[in-house]
Amino acid sequence: MELDTTALVGVLDRVGAVAFAISGVQAGVRRNFDVFGLWVMGLVTATGGGVMRDVILDRQPLVLARPDYLLWATGGAVFAMALAWRGRPYPRAVVTIAETGGLGAFAVAGALAAINAGEGWSGALLMAILTATGGGVIRDLLADRVPLVLHSEVNATAAGLGGLATWAAYDVSSSAATLLGLSVAALVRAAGVAFDLHLPRPRRPGRGRPTG
Amino acid sequence: MELDTTALVGVLDRVGAVAFAISGVQAGVRRNFDVFGLWVMGLVTATGGGVMRDVILDRQPLVLARPDYLLWATGGAVFAMALAWRGRPYPRAVVTIAETGGLGAFAVAGALAAINAGEGWSGALLMAILTATGGGVIRDLLADRVPLVLHSEVNATAAGLGGLATWAAYDVSSSAATLLGLSVAALVRAAGVAFDLHLPRPRRPGRGRPTG
Amino acid sequence: MELDTTALVGVLDRVGAVAFAISGVQAGVRRNFDVFGLWVMGLVTATGGGVMRDVILDRQPLVLARPDYLLWATGGAVFAMALAWRGRPYPRAVVTIAETGGLGAFAVAGALAAINAGEGWSGALLMAILTATGGGVIRDLLADRVPLVLHSEVNATAAGLGGLATWAAYDVSSSAATLLGLSVAALVRAAGVAFDLHLPRPRRPGRGRPTG
Repeated sequence: MELDTTALVGVLDRVGAVAFAISGVQAGVRRNFDVFGLWVMGLVTATGGGVMRDVILDRQPLVLARPDYLLWATGGAVFAMALAWRGRPYPRAVVTIAETGGLGAFAVAGALAAINAGEGWSGALLMAILTATGGGVIRDLLADRVPLVLHSEVNATAAGLGGLATWAAYDVSSSAATLLGLSVAALVRAAGVAFDLHLPRPRRPGRGRPTG
Repeated sequence: MELDTTALVGVLDRVGAVAFAISGVQAGVRRNFDVFGLWVMGLVTATGGGVMRDVILDRQPLVLARPDYLLWATGGAVFAMALAWRGRPYPRAVVTIAETGGLGAFAVAGALAAINAGEGWSGALLMAILTATGGGVIRDLLADRVPLVLHSEVNATAAGLGGLATWAAYDVSSSAATLLGLSVAALVRAAGVAFDLHLPRPRRPGRGRPTG
Repeated sequence: MELDTTALVGVLDRVGAVAFAISGVQAGVRRNFDVFGLWVMGLVTATGGGVMRDVILDRQPLVLARPDYLLWATGGAVFAMALAWRGRPYPRAVVTIAETGGLGAFAVAGALAAINAGEGWSGALLMAILTATGGGVIRDLLADRVPLVLHSEVNATAAGLGGLATWAAYDVSSSAATLLGLSVAALVRAAGVAFDLHLPRPRRPGRGRPTG
């Protein structure tokens, strides 16, 4: 019996879209964006990485091909705006768990898109990272701050390892590759959050602490 | 008799390119960019939204297909640079009117491109917004400021409503759709400027005024 | 005998990728990025201009088609990180020379890509500038600073002139066009660095010095 891993990725993808949209709205609220700006922040954080991947791989962007992504991202954005309006705190634990599943799904989706486009390990690596972290980079650029992923998250490492695992196991079976990639990316991210892991960085003379 | 609405959009498109180029140069002058930087600011503000739309819809970018756009944008940039050099004020009223017509033309052009690519209402909505506001977002990123459209303009709302109107009326006739979309986008924008309308935004506790 | 100018551009392209990657890491070290962030900075500075060009011209991005670019950029990034870790100064003179050759190669590669895609002089001009300076613009956006090329470098002027020269000489022979474009771009850049040339800019009343 073959597990229906495509459906699993499809579900986690949408869970990720909701969670990423929430993080986009959070960044926008800090900048006092209006409701349109907040909706854009939710939308591009949820879909920007996938759109860049599809443009580079010359495919129709998923958000146009499957308009329900637009609705999931809009739902996440509206939820986050409602919380902001009432001054309620974000459900941090739930969002972190949703982001972790979403990161795994985005990494696997990116790697599979590269493999289907005939790319090798380097394409799978780059597209997994771009899909999983590209939306957050656009979010941070629009909010005029240095992208978090470049200085304080392990998300990109998690996505890259997940993408490589997907590529490596793809010859065995695409279901196995999907499950392995999902698990690797999600576990690395979860470990990063749980143990507050950070990648090393060079320190410049005369400056003790990071600026990020 | 069918109105030649294609020609109307073509004229307003170029009027918009000139007006958008002027706004790009204005943002660059504030940052003391050199003449090349100012020309780039004019060019990407005028054409950046359309290039992103065409890349996403997998069409040849209009600025390459019709090089006269390059000349109109360059003309607007040179005009704005000449004013900056002589310390003369920008003709604000004329530029605002030109921007309003341009916004309508850009929104309709974006929606029509999406419809011609087989997209539905969500594609028409997104591409109208992207075409009309994408150049301004790139302008603001290059000038290292938070994009205006996310916190203080109604431009995106105007473009989105114009795009939806274009989509809704397209089955009647493409001329009617063009005129309707143009009018909706331009009127919403004009009302926004005339009455200083802003979209609502959540306020965070402990902070009374927007940061934008 | 026809000179093998394709091989010459290929070599200089890779020299440029290494030098551009080093400049990306330098910008990231100033922001205290971690090792992943620094690798990304190296990679996008070296390849971002070419990826944007290929996406606009609807070609497969070179970094996916020829994965050795990834390795050259990674090599440059690792070298720059090693210097940063040990607190050693960057070999400024060597990097400047490598950047000058790379700028010429990137400008010629951009112009040739536009010519091969059937574009005219305006496409060759825009694609030469985009290829040679696009990576640096992304680098500066990620490091949250105003792009250098817009206010204090002659790189874009050099790339644009090189692109136009390539286009103008292409009907004679593609080898001649390559050599001419390379020489024009590299010489203008070298003169700009040697004589500290800057393009003129308008000054605003009440402000004496540039903000860049």
